[in-house]
Amino acid sequence: MAKSVLFPLLILLLILRTTYASAPSPGRMGLKMVRRSLSSQSYSELQSFYYSQTLDHFNYRPDSYQTFQQRYFINSQYWGGANTSSPIFAYLGAETDVTLNIPAIGFIDDLAARFKGLLLYMEHRYYGESIPFGSNQNSSTLGYFSSTQALADYAQLIIDVKKNLSAENCPVIAVGGSYGGMLASWFRLKYPHIVIGALASSAPILYFDDITPQDGYYVVVSQVFRNKSESCYSNITQSWSEIDRVAGESNGLATLEKIFTLCNPLNSALELKNILASMYMYSAQYDSPEENYVENVCGAIDGAPEGTDVLGRIAAGLNSSSSSCQSMSVGRSPALQDYVQEQGWSWQKCTEIVMPFGIDNNNTMFWIAPFNLSNYISNCQEAFGVTPRPHWITTEFGGRDIKSVLGNFGSNIIFSNGLRDPYSAGGVVEDISENIVAVNTERGSHCLDLYTPSVNDPDWLVAQRDKETKIIAQWITDYAKPKKN
Amino acid sequence: MAKSVLFPLLILLLILRTTYASAPSPGRMGLKMVRRSLSSQSYSELQSFYYSQTLDHFNYRPDSYQTFQQRYFINSQYWGGANTSSPIFAYLGAETDVTLNIPAIGFIDDLAARFKGLLLYMEHRYYGESIPFGSNQNSSTLGYFSSTQALADYAQLIIDVKKNLSAENCPVIAVGGSYGGMLASWFRLKYPHIVIGALASSAPILYFDDITPQDGYYVVVSQVFRNKSESCYSNITQSWSEIDRVAGESNGLATLEKIFTLCNPLNSALELKNILASMYMYSAQYDSPEENYVENVCGAIDGAPEGTDVLGRIAAGLNSSSSSCQSMSVGRSPALQDYVQEQGWSWQKCTEIVMPFGIDNNNTMFWIAPFNLSNYISNCQEAFGVTPRPHWITTEFGGRDIKSVLGNFGSNIIFSNGLRDPYSAGGVVEDISENIVAVNTERGSHCLDLYTPSVNDPDWLVAQRDKETKIIAQWITDYAKPKKN
Repeated sequence: MAKSVLFPLLILLLILRTTYASAPSPGRMGLKMVRRSLSSQSYSELQSFYYSQTLDHFNYRPDSYQTFQQRYFINSQYWGGANTSSPIFAYLGAETDVTLNIPAIGFIDDLAARFKGLLLYMEHRYYGESIPFGSNQNSSTLGYFSSTQALADYAQLIIDVKKNLSAENCPVIAVGGSYGGMLASWFRLKYPHIVIGALASSAPILYFDDITPQDGYYVVVSQVFRNKSESCYSNITQSWSEIDRVAGESNGLATLEKIFTLCNPLNSALELKNILASMYMYSAQYDSPEENYVENVCGAIDGAPEGTDVLGRIAAGLNSSSSSCQSMSVGRSPALQDYVQEQGWSWQKCTEIVMPFGIDNNNTMFWIAPFNLSNYISNCQEAFGVTPRPHWITTEFGGRDIKSVLGNFGSNIIFSNGLRDPYSAGGVVEDISENIVAVNTERGSHCLDLYTPSVNDPDWLVAQRDKETKIIAQWITDYAKPKKN
Repeated sequence: MAKSVLFPLLILLLILRTTYASAPSPGRMGLKMVRRSLSSQSYSELQSFYYSQTLDHFNYRPDSYQTFQQRYFINSQYWGGANTSSPIFAYLGAETDVTLNIPAIGFIDDLAARFKGLLLYMEHRYYGESIPFGSNQNSSTLGYFSSTQALADYAQLIIDVKKNLSAENCPVIAVGGSYGGMLASWFRLKYPHIVIGALASSAPILYFDDITPQDGYYVVVSQVFRNKSESCYSNITQSWSEIDRVAGESNGLATLEKIFTLCNPLNSALELKNILASMYMYSAQYDSPEENYVENVCGAIDGAPEGTDVLGRIAAGLNSSSSSCQSMSVGRSPALQDYVQEQGWSWQKCTEIVMPFGIDNNNTMFWIAPFNLSNYISNCQEAFGVTPRPHWITTEFGGRDIKSVLGNFGSNIIFSNGLRDPYSAGGVVEDISENIVAVNTERGSHCLDLYTPSVNDPDWLVAQRDKETKIIAQWITDYAKPKKN
């Protein structure tokens, strides 16, 4: 995605987000979206389908029996077929239109080619074209929008697809990234009879309740910047109070607009601080061998002419990402579609995905802004008329003492993380057992392993994918052994 | 329970049941209820509580946030306390008022005494006093009545109880029998972060879809009778056509009423056949060292004076269970309360607990009456306006290829069964792995291990409980080992 599209979008999302959070909101979860056409040659065998999915799996109210059309895609170009019990790679769609992910996550195409696998991409309810009740949403119709319902959707859909293909004996492997990675690991834990294993990339399943320190995300961002350049880190750390100081002067906001070449007037110093924080967080989260965001930003900050003051340097960092002025306007652009998706994710954050992000001490390069649950709750009540259940995820899926709990329970989960990804702070980065393992890279970022492999990939990334492939090969081999019953 | 109470009750239940099934409906699930007072000396430390439970855990509709009062009981007389990380035995209430189970299931009192455990008895939603919306039920208010909701209730309630007792570090062990045993095993599988293990007694988790042959239940009943007495079995097998033959004569039903000394007129031969089948099934299911039901029935059948014909012998068998005439009337009796409970269980059978009981061949001593899913569904639609989801349990909880699926997944489940219990046909009666084990007795019946131990218990029953106790001791020891994280 061109940077010129990305940054306005980011800023827009940020504005939407600041309604609900006082600390700078962490980078959007999920994979970077790729707006490549699915009609290209490589997707000639990709077929789309719709499944009449049960609206409410867990209740038997008259409404529960309603159905909606859940979209899914199948690519069978690599498949060995049902007769050979060839595997099915089931991609669990997350908080976006699934077609925005399919062209990006080429690693599973490689897996499919390697294991003669079928590729099954399932869209998450309330995203893309899989939206119950269509565009007219209220708190009642949105009420069926939950991760447990989505997991049950996947269970039911996979069973149906296998039946249609007479592929009941084919092993299924769940794959997902970010929120989708959480879903993948939870799916293996809750539905071991449906999937023989799960690849959960960058899944911050421990970023709930007080399992992970609230500033974990920001600490990683800060470390990434500090490791890149001590002076860059130091300038950023100093900049917040400097912005506040200038904003406090007469015409201070106008001064800041000028320094930072913003397209639109600032309403507050916080607005600018959030733009900057967002840029740093995004840079760390999506830094990659192809796109050296952190190096670019720090290069600009450190490379400003000698004598440039802190704000001048920070402005140079911001401008390194875009040649035009820094827009915060909501235009008729690709961002509009994301607005809809972002609403979906905001709903999920306002119901069950309550990840307490906050900064409660000086361990980071950001300003202090502790997580405030009561504000969080009232913002959600105001925005959606819904009250979050902040303890639900740990009640339903656990997370506390995960090494003890899963040490002798469960198997066949790969938690992959890039340790430069700030979400890795809430990820599983140590082996839990012989069969529930962490595959980390020191230099990797958010969901990096899932992206389409390239000849330019560094060795450590190739090695990570190789390790994952070997583990998956073992699952498939174990599955193929003569059955015990 | 005195037999004079039991049999009319059974017959009543049977009549209610025959609306929904064409094969003779198997014995009621669950433990025999004990109507002993909870105020007796042994329960002096039993305290009752109510928890404001979430009505709908899985959705975020405005209605979902309603609460109901879930009843639970705590007995702390044996407890070592939170400081010593003493265990908590959590009894998962099933399809009845939980106070009817508490006095019966003394095995967990013994476990508590042995391990200094806390006893926690939780009532299942929509039973006893834990009924959302009270007595005015319709298909909307009943709609929140499901096993997944009940499991989430237990998860949330256990977390709350532990918090109130500052017992967060105490290991919890789930215990349940029959449907409650299914819940216990599912609870360990879905909520390993809440319970370290589960004792699932007589849990027919495989009696769904086509995993277990539909006649499995009846085959076991037949084997139990045949093993007791070949002639008894043979008389029973012959009796059905003989009943049909007599019923076909003029005044045939009156003749049958007289032969079987029924209190009330018969409406059909099937009514009588169901009464008899129910007696046989109950006798096998609850046969025990204390109550030799099968021996009594077969003793009467075989012991009738020489020359007694088949129906005369069968009538003697029926009358062995009660000195009065055989009533089918719905009186103002303890049965009334059970009617309410039975309605609850009928609802569950009409939504998700679709166990396909039927007789599709000559492997049993009963008449042929194959399971008919479409009839089942239309009966449910007629009775409750609700449509069963016959594949939901296997979708949500699995069951197929259980040995492969759980062979390298999960741990710490005891499936205990008495092989004379007809429900054992759908139970797990072979070890799945080192840590998911079957503890069977050749001569045991439904949930026998859970009942209060007595000095008169035979060695094999003592040995079964000892084995279970040893396994549970190991779970507690393992839990107490230094934590890995």
